[in-house]
Amino acid sequence: MQNVYIIGTSATPVGEHWERTAISLACEALNGARGALPTERIGALYVANALSAAIGGQAQLGAAIAAAAGMHGAEAHTIEAGGASGGLALRQAYLAVASGAYDLVAVVGVEKTTDVLDDRREAAQIQAADVDWEAVQGATTTAQWAMLMRRYMHVYGVSSDAFAPFPVNAHANGAASKTAMYRFAISADKVRSAALVADPLTLLDCSTSADGAAAVIVASESIAREIGSPLIRIAGSAVATDTLALHSRPDPLWLSAAARSAAVALQGAHLTHSDIQVLDLTDPHGIAAALALESSGFAERGSATHMARDGAIRPDGAIPLATGGGCKARGDLIGANGVYQIIELVRQLRGEAGAAQVQGAKRALAQCLGGIGTTAATHILIAESSSS
Amino acid sequence: MQNVYIIGTSATPVGEHWERTAISLACEALNGARGALPTERIGALYVANALSAAIGGQAQLGAAIAAAAGMHGAEAHTIEAGGASGGLALRQAYLAVASGAYDLVAVVGVEKTTDVLDDRREAAQIQAADVDWEAVQGATTTAQWAMLMRRYMHVYGVSSDAFAPFPVNAHANGAASKTAMYRFAISADKVRSAALVADPLTLLDCSTSADGAAAVIVASESIAREIGSPLIRIAGSAVATDTLALHSRPDPLWLSAAARSAAVALQGAHLTHSDIQVLDLTDPHGIAAALALESSGFAERGSATHMARDGAIRPDGAIPLATGGGCKARGDLIGANGVYQIIELVRQLRGEAGAAQVQGAKRALAQCLGGIGTTAATHILIAESSSS
Repeated sequence: MQNVYIIGTSATPVGEHWERTAISLACEALNGARGALPTERIGALYVANALSAAIGGQAQLGAAIAAAAGMHGAEAHTIEAGGASGGLALRQAYLAVASGAYDLVAVVGVEKTTDVLDDRREAAQIQAADVDWEAVQGATTTAQWAMLMRRYMHVYGVSSDAFAPFPVNAHANGAASKTAMYRFAISADKVRSAALVADPLTLLDCSTSADGAAAVIVASESIAREIGSPLIRIAGSAVATDTLALHSRPDPLWLSAAARSAAVALQGAHLTHSDIQVLDLTDPHGIAAALALESSGFAERGSATHMARDGAIRPDGAIPLATGGGCKARGDLIGANGVYQIIELVRQLRGEAGAAQVQGAKRALAQCLGGIGTTAATHILIAESSSS
Repeated sequence: MQNVYIIGTSATPVGEHWERTAISLACEALNGARGALPTERIGALYVANALSAAIGGQAQLGAAIAAAAGMHGAEAHTIEAGGASGGLALRQAYLAVASGAYDLVAVVGVEKTTDVLDDRREAAQIQAADVDWEAVQGATTTAQWAMLMRRYMHVYGVSSDAFAPFPVNAHANGAASKTAMYRFAISADKVRSAALVADPLTLLDCSTSADGAAAVIVASESIAREIGSPLIRIAGSAVATDTLALHSRPDPLWLSAAARSAAVALQGAHLTHSDIQVLDLTDPHGIAAALALESSGFAERGSATHMARDGAIRPDGAIPLATGGGCKARGDLIGANGVYQIIELVRQLRGEAGAAQVQGAKRALAQCLGGIGTTAATHILIAESSSS
């Protein structure tokens, strides 16, 4: 397989873009990411989206965006795996270049969900859970994470307060981001005293569904070397799956797809956990971040909240997390999250992350989950000097 | 890129499977296709589906089917591009093996649409058209093909009767198929006198949406050689796109995505049109088959209906079409059509096509379209002797 690089990135601000369509958001991100590269040079487009058909009524989004972005005639795909869609689209782009089929392709993750009322959005989002056994009971994704949080508290003897460092860290980092939806810090006290959404999750430990688009340009080594340093290589790429329904899992606190995809991606990159200097995980709630950290091998089981309390997840900690604000402060882009993650990590590896910069970061890991860890995609990025 | 082969195929009968779920149909096809191969050996699953979320309420179908089929933990993707979904899933499977990432992957196309009334199915299907400009006017896919048929009749001076040989041929071939929905012949008179669905399309020139699943196992050369002869190689693979809306096209009778994907696939296979001995195209109506034949270069513009009249599309003709019944007699599986096509062509290349066998067929071409040719996927299959 050929080496594969990321040579361009761009994202729209995250928010409620009532005046925009999904297609126009995607074009803005794509055009920003390609910069001066002519559209004719981009061989294929991989579109990550979870809810366009369910909410906006538009299927075949891949072709629609290719045409609108001036990539007339190009190969285009639409990939859906709930919140893991962005990671899966990147995975396909990676294989398209690694195989030698193309030397230049584009990935865009886009979500436009705020045009409808919350109940309709919830009904669309819960399609990523098991429809026959879970969605039919009204068990939204938030409700399921709340149950897992309750279980975690019971098994490991921690209080709900123990999860507050995750949203507090996300907001502290998001405050410095130009694209984040919520650019302000919050305190652990605020998290604790916020209204309950699904007991024990409070409003300030719940991400907000939002609109936005993020794009990356993926290229072969020869093209990446033309563009110049620092080279950002996709050193590991893996996708794994788990059951839809929580009740089918031997241990609901173990996200086996997260575990498997992280292990395969690290192995592919010839790295171990301690080599990774900055992370971006699926963290709509503190419990999600905690389970992803533990299942992916970055924390011992039962220790994630303690590590967060001790500052390990801050930009100056051992496992910096949510440096761009995470799902909580950046906004939850569902199918586009996986691409926003990559853009934040590229910013880190280029040393352009401002107040949330992890000093000297050269190796990063992004992981996005669909449903409650039903699909997991993990990618590892390495900054190379162009002379290496 | 590595050589890529198809080593196993299986499909459920096509029909109204009210007592089955999409997942159970997909598992039946997958299990049939893999035969004695253990599920653990299959590295990834590519699921083609257009309407599961819109009609069945289930997203993340890739993970759902992987778990149900015993491929626990495996990489799984869901691909949507309307009626081209099956071809796009095969394209991704092809690249996964061609890249060397996997030596064995599976593709399953599945559609389950008959649980809802026709109006709701139409509303879901029309999402593959341009929602802002076409679907909003109530212009269903059938209505759009009817307008193209009227235009074709005007431009080339043929009557609506000229298109009858396409459904007549499809039904003649489908009568011999074990999986086809309609296993009986029809006459041109019957086509002409059937009720109008969308003038000038009559009921017997309109495909029927149906339920079913089809699966193929895709493998590297070394595994294919273990399994033995005849080896069926994917010699060409290409995807292209066009605008969603017909009004955006310079010439509505020219399916540019079909043209481009066919040209790229033939070039990749180092073949010309005259090398292809059997075809399967997207033929829900005679007009669709005619435009696909002309745009793909198998007929001069304006000549497709004359070629059909003269018998060229029959199994003993120069460009045998719909040998498994096509969309019309097999049933229209939407997202799964592209996989059913491949299975029929593999049957032809193995000499197992019975009454519809094209004698000595060694090179075949499958093309599926999403929307009115908005997305097109073309694959070329070649039968090789295992000693070659």
